[in-house]
Amino acid sequence: MRNLNAEIIATGSELLWDGRPETNSIYLADRLIELGFEPIHKSVVGDEERWMAEAIRQAASRAAVVLITGGLGPTEDDLTKKVVSRITGRRLILQEKLLEPLRRRFVERAQAMPAQIERQALMPARSVVIQNPTGSAPGLILHWENSYLICLPGVPHEMRSMYEATVRPFLLQRFPSRPWNALHFFRTYGLMESAVNERLADLMIAHRQVRIGLSAKPTGVDVRIVGRGRNKEEVRILLEGLLRKVEERLADVLYTRGLDEMEAVVGRLLRERRMKLAVAESCTGGLIGHRLTQVPGSSDYLDRVEVCYSNRAKVDALGVPAELIEANGAVSAPVVAAMARGIRRRAGTDIGLAVTGIAGPGGATPEKPVGLVYFGLDDGRAVQTPFVRFSGDRAAIKLRASQHALDLLRRALSGTTPASPSR
Amino acid sequence: MRNLNAEIIATGSELLWDGRPETNSIYLADRLIELGFEPIHKSVVGDEERWMAEAIRQAASRAAVVLITGGLGPTEDDLTKKVVSRITGRRLILQEKLLEPLRRRFVERAQAMPAQIERQALMPARSVVIQNPTGSAPGLILHWENSYLICLPGVPHEMRSMYEATVRPFLLQRFPSRPWNALHFFRTYGLMESAVNERLADLMIAHRQVRIGLSAKPTGVDVRIVGRGRNKEEVRILLEGLLRKVEERLADVLYTRGLDEMEAVVGRLLRERRMKLAVAESCTGGLIGHRLTQVPGSSDYLDRVEVCYSNRAKVDALGVPAELIEANGAVSAPVVAAMARGIRRRAGTDIGLAVTGIAGPGGATPEKPVGLVYFGLDDGRAVQTPFVRFSGDRAAIKLRASQHALDLLRRALSGTTPASPSR
Repeated sequence: MRNLNAEIIATGSELLWDGRPETNSIYLADRLIELGFEPIHKSVVGDEERWMAEAIRQAASRAAVVLITGGLGPTEDDLTKKVVSRITGRRLILQEKLLEPLRRRFVERAQAMPAQIERQALMPARSVVIQNPTGSAPGLILHWENSYLICLPGVPHEMRSMYEATVRPFLLQRFPSRPWNALHFFRTYGLMESAVNERLADLMIAHRQVRIGLSAKPTGVDVRIVGRGRNKEEVRILLEGLLRKVEERLADVLYTRGLDEMEAVVGRLLRERRMKLAVAESCTGGLIGHRLTQVPGSSDYLDRVEVCYSNRAKVDALGVPAELIEANGAVSAPVVAAMARGIRRRAGTDIGLAVTGIAGPGGATPEKPVGLVYFGLDDGRAVQTPFVRFSGDRAAIKLRASQHALDLLRRALSGTTPASPSR
Repeated sequence: MRNLNAEIIATGSELLWDGRPETNSIYLADRLIELGFEPIHKSVVGDEERWMAEAIRQAASRAAVVLITGGLGPTEDDLTKKVVSRITGRRLILQEKLLEPLRRRFVERAQAMPAQIERQALMPARSVVIQNPTGSAPGLILHWENSYLICLPGVPHEMRSMYEATVRPFLLQRFPSRPWNALHFFRTYGLMESAVNERLADLMIAHRQVRIGLSAKPTGVDVRIVGRGRNKEEVRILLEGLLRKVEERLADVLYTRGLDEMEAVVGRLLRERRMKLAVAESCTGGLIGHRLTQVPGSSDYLDRVEVCYSNRAKVDALGVPAELIEANGAVSAPVVAAMARGIRRRAGTDIGLAVTGIAGPGGATPEKPVGLVYFGLDDGRAVQTPFVRFSGDRAAIKLRASQHALDLLRRALSGTTPASPSR
């Protein structure tokens, strides 16, 4: 099978200096994989002609497609077209038809167009222009030696819309006999990465045309499977048995096939069962409510969330008896049960979900260490009160506890057994 | 001034395929900048000998320091040392003293050590070993031609601790006459990026040795300033006037100098003023509570948060009169005022903060479009009820509204005037 190598070059000194991940290349790598290309190299290079020229020349020597983002604007630092022109020997030509829409943008704003804006209408000879419907800098595609050099702006939304509208159709047309990549996702909660790895280890080495990647997050372990073959049917056959095996082996911890977050899975279950939910949080501080309400339409099943940070709030707002807190401490099974019952009764919902714990770094005692969290789930028939000790810093403990609470709810709704604590 | 160029190479096919940003290089670029180096290029390269060799060779031809992460483990895919050995001509030698701790790890777990583990004790001739106190794969430093090749594992916490313990002191010692870089941050809320840019434009072009970078987020615009000079004193003098000007020009929108989040700034103000806070959220769904409780010790000033997603919850839990909601709608100035008053009274706190709005995509009416959000702040003397219409999707609207609410609180606490809505 022929490999179609692809490379991505992100240009811009700020990408090296600004302390943030460069995300355009993540988007483009995923799109290229979907089309059957194989990304072999990514670079981030500053606004310096010689380094840019070297990066582009080398990428073109290795890859059928080189996607270059950034450096198409009107300023001195915008060097991409100049560099492409120099290395390919295609001189820059002013394109009258590109100048017109640029002029119009300034007329609309009743401003004079600065002379340097004209640079955006310069294009290397024999290149295909990529229109930019949402911004001002057009892109270009140029065939040179054995590669297509494809230049797009660095502004993410412009880059994405231009990729979709022009680059994708272009690649589909120019590479009709591409290999086929299929991506599949499985998201799990309740096992450590090493345990997921152990369950899948034999599958990970058995197939040369399949990549199985694990990524461990505080919210669980995601499994990403990429199958590669000559065409869709070949990949379907290649993956058929494998995907079934992965699903079977992860069945007890799998919360979704695909990329949905846990809150979306839980939301779907609540909606299907026409059930209403109310939540009482303490150490998670509102994170469970925040996550549940990230899902559009969540007001259909979420009634309210009470974040009771003080003991007094637990008494007033949830009706937890003050004596219960005094006798057991706020982080205890009796208190979390009373919180779950209290919020369910006050809100009049089908389910009450409660969390109380110690997110740290303060607040711990010898019996109640940082990371200890109690969960309460009242479904009107019984109240479950499991507890877990989580590791990590404050932010990680909050996130893990929110995921555990949502998973507990998911299991209750789907009628499965509770998760075994993983950390 | 001599530039000390630095490059970073992240190895591992999964970094090209797994749809996530590579973060080791962000950490390392920041550390190198702090030491006075200039990062000029970053690469991500798959586990393929020839591409790795090319990337390392080219980086070494340009940079005084090349940091390479990943590929030091025991599997077939771990190629870094093999490649470094091949391009430098230094053969791999088994180091007995490295084998010992590897064997001990297996003895402790009462397991036999697989033969391939021995690979981790192979080192290119004439290289300095970097101990790995928290993992199994040691790193190395090797001087070749005019560069130091520095290999570290890809596991972030191992890489970081090895950088701090060994690489940083090594670089300090080998490059005694480094240039000096100083980093400064200013975080603003309330202006669009273009407006911040306009205020700083003349400063951005006036200084050749200063980079001023803006990054626009839903929570505001951050300004990052890097000053570069021969030594600390020179940079201090270079930046002195500039930093003062930046601070003055952004005074009305600046919420912190440094990297603190808004919730930390607000928390500090509440603590200093010994004031207690309670929050009533609706469309933000718990995000304000979540953010406030990310700060350690927030239980000292945060009493409770009520997320009233249903109208009934607003009536029951906050005492908002049902007639008020009927007459004005839940998203209105009278209702947000009643929410702020209600939460303050019920919780008995100094301040009540409330938010109600339409996060979308559903729930809009012609008079009340998606993104319309009312804010209520009751400090016991008066109730403010400003409103803003935010743009973006549901997640962006929630985030922007939470930032606006916290900024409103910050301004009230620090006695400044309310922010003008920026979007």
